[in-house]
Amino acid sequence: MSEHDVIVIGAGPAGEVACGQLADEGLDVCLVERELVGGECAFWACMPSKALLRPGDLLAEAGRVPGVSEACDGELDTATILERRDEVIHDLDDDVQLPWLRERSIHLVRGQARFAGERRLRVGDELLQARRAVIIATGSGADIPPIGELREIAPWTNREATTSKEVPASLIVLGGGAVGCELAQAWRTLGTRVTLVEALPRLLPAHEPFAAELLEQALRDRGVDVRTGAPATGAARTDGSFSLTLDGGETLEAQELLVAIGRKPHTDDLGLEAIDLAPGETIAVDDRMRVASHESWLYAVGDVNGRALLTHAGKYQALVACATIMNREARAIWDRELAPQVVFTEPQVAAVGLTLERALAAGVRARAVDADPGRTPGGSFVGKGAAARTRIVVDEEREVIVGATLVGTDVAESLQAATFAIVGEVPLGRLVHAMPAFPTRSEVWLKLLADWAP
Amino acid sequence: MSEHDVIVIGAGPAGEVACGQLADEGLDVCLVERELVGGECAFWACMPSKALLRPGDLLAEAGRVPGVSEACDGELDTATILERRDEVIHDLDDDVQLPWLRERSIHLVRGQARFAGERRLRVGDELLQARRAVIIATGSGADIPPIGELREIAPWTNREATTSKEVPASLIVLGGGAVGCELAQAWRTLGTRVTLVEALPRLLPAHEPFAAELLEQALRDRGVDVRTGAPATGAARTDGSFSLTLDGGETLEAQELLVAIGRKPHTDDLGLEAIDLAPGETIAVDDRMRVASHESWLYAVGDVNGRALLTHAGKYQALVACATIMNREARAIWDRELAPQVVFTEPQVAAVGLTLERALAAGVRARAVDADPGRTPGGSFVGKGAAARTRIVVDEEREVIVGATLVGTDVAESLQAATFAIVGEVPLGRLVHAMPAFPTRSEVWLKLLADWAP
Repeated sequence: MSEHDVIVIGAGPAGEVACGQLADEGLDVCLVERELVGGECAFWACMPSKALLRPGDLLAEAGRVPGVSEACDGELDTATILERRDEVIHDLDDDVQLPWLRERSIHLVRGQARFAGERRLRVGDELLQARRAVIIATGSGADIPPIGELREIAPWTNREATTSKEVPASLIVLGGGAVGCELAQAWRTLGTRVTLVEALPRLLPAHEPFAAELLEQALRDRGVDVRTGAPATGAARTDGSFSLTLDGGETLEAQELLVAIGRKPHTDDLGLEAIDLAPGETIAVDDRMRVASHESWLYAVGDVNGRALLTHAGKYQALVACATIMNREARAIWDRELAPQVVFTEPQVAAVGLTLERALAAGVRARAVDADPGRTPGGSFVGKGAAARTRIVVDEEREVIVGATLVGTDVAESLQAATFAIVGEVPLGRLVHAMPAFPTRSEVWLKLLADWAP
Repeated sequence: MSEHDVIVIGAGPAGEVACGQLADEGLDVCLVERELVGGECAFWACMPSKALLRPGDLLAEAGRVPGVSEACDGELDTATILERRDEVIHDLDDDVQLPWLRERSIHLVRGQARFAGERRLRVGDELLQARRAVIIATGSGADIPPIGELREIAPWTNREATTSKEVPASLIVLGGGAVGCELAQAWRTLGTRVTLVEALPRLLPAHEPFAAELLEQALRDRGVDVRTGAPATGAARTDGSFSLTLDGGETLEAQELLVAIGRKPHTDDLGLEAIDLAPGETIAVDDRMRVASHESWLYAVGDVNGRALLTHAGKYQALVACATIMNREARAIWDRELAPQVVFTEPQVAAVGLTLERALAAGVRARAVDADPGRTPGGSFVGKGAAARTRIVVDEEREVIVGATLVGTDVAESLQAATFAIVGEVPLGRLVHAMPAFPTRSEVWLKLLADWAP
């Protein structure tokens, strides 16, 4: 039996942050991973999808700027993009991550962890005992719903769709959330004929309706066949192709079918029964990341606790869990539906805090203020791409911003300003003193805050 | 004689903002402009310089990203870039600005305004009377120092350097501040052989030393001959070329010579004697933009008051002046050396608030925290261009950020987050809850704020 201060199960971003933080604080940490150190995000999700998306966005922008477009009249080099994607995911080899663990004396155990009791885990034949705490950070996997034969026909999930070595001739994407929209655009840009199917009446249902509208139009302009309000009722596979039947009877066919309608927590094989938790379910936690009935020793961070299925939310929660383990007071106040998130499409959709609808539903005296960052002087130097719009949602009673949604080319990095304003609860009358530099598109803030100008 | 509530002298950005704001509040406004409505910034400074810089930056980035570089193996189309620059500056025609004035019933008078007494101005034969206030927003022009024959030989100023229809074969840039660095890079990228001369030991003397170092290296890598610690002692013009003699005796020669060492306020021809102010001098104002001895009616905003020679600072001050005129309490607390500013070179240099040196000199218990945004996961998707580094300056007593400097590719839009954090005086312990989205380069904040993590 090997004993450690803390055992972390799952070496994705949340688990890694937890290990790093605890090791930095002098604790003896053991990390258990059944697949690759780095996790879903690094190998099969955020990182490879951005590697597939960014070249197309950049070439499109180059083509829109006079004087540059003349120099860029070639085509995207698909083979090179796939190679670069493989480089970003280190050819699905996690060797590069290991020195980081060794430098911190983090003990890595490879295999499936299963609870054998309180603070006790079994990995294969090995028994692990935690002196202080166990952190579950096992993440999530694609959820495949029981539509027709969907579960049996082995469709693509985010894993195959981000790591495919070939550009499929045609692809049906089932699910119009962030993952579905990003991968629809990525493969369309690389030459695939793409149909994007969403059961709800619009894409990105968690975002402001205007963001969904602008993105849907942009995807259509790019040649993606977008079907909203189209629940799937059947799925089948025949030699070399998939078919998906929609409510109403139409049947779509394509070489590949990607299912991106949601996630399920990786809690099936953890032996949770041994500590009276339900396998296969999300593990509920309080704001300090403690698991009910096991508050003194058990934590769950990242996708597995269902609070906010975002890499950065998992990293944030990991810090909160570590603080709790180290007996510091810390609470996660900024994950859940408030967490910032970016859809890396063109236009990008970046949002943080409450949408107008959610703010009103929460009883906030909310007002939306909209402006177009493309119409600032700084907008003159960005190519005329997809439509752009920025919205802030203001709490008129407290005179602070409670939500923001940015839609436009390369707006991802501009989100942090909104996040600071919202999390910092900076009064609007103070924010107007934070003049944006000329000529940047950040001057959109002048319009957004005009009503609170001196 | 024509009477108006307020007369604004100078139709640059500061004057335009003042006019727009006052007209929106229902006042009868008269605007006097002796050149072009839009001002220096729109026609001969910020706007054309960015039009010259952006294509080169974009093509360079395209060339650094695998899969895109293969499509972009051509050269910048210089003629098209100059044409687009001409489009941005509307071929030095201000017609496009006039509908905006008309819609707001702003009365435009073209010509040189001269004070004829309190609240009274003469423009040619026309006498103008202000019922409430006069706002001086006449801006500044290039200052040409009496070095050798420099004032007599008609060198380029920012005006010629931003509007030239030809790419000179060679160019000496005298002055290593923002304007000098930007225009050195712009013309170098378009093919000119450029020597950049700065009397002080380093470029960008108002910025953090590391920013100057990174920029100097990048300019050298690009082929700019950078001479720092090199005061000029003589200047002459011979047939078709300029020469500049440096302290030590070396003489540089080039087809053109750009002087970018500073600005002088446009206060020579305003008839300031009539109201007992000194012509040719900066017009000092208080934090409400009021001119001493004339507090009840006279305001000065923008470069002419010498507080912060930046377009956005002028716009900010204009709002403060308007509030004061409308009897609202407002003070400019965020211009002067605290104002955000961006140098649009590659790497860009974006800064706001205090440098470490200025913070320490001001008695702040200051500490600098540095991190490299290029080493975030989001940095993987940006080409490996010039070096990048972000610094925050923290007030350890108050536990807030008091300064930030961002150096890197396309960091201009990332500055607003720092500006909100600083102006909002958001406690560091609160800022750490503002998690940046993965994978953006904004995650550099995780490293910058690590010491204040929960």
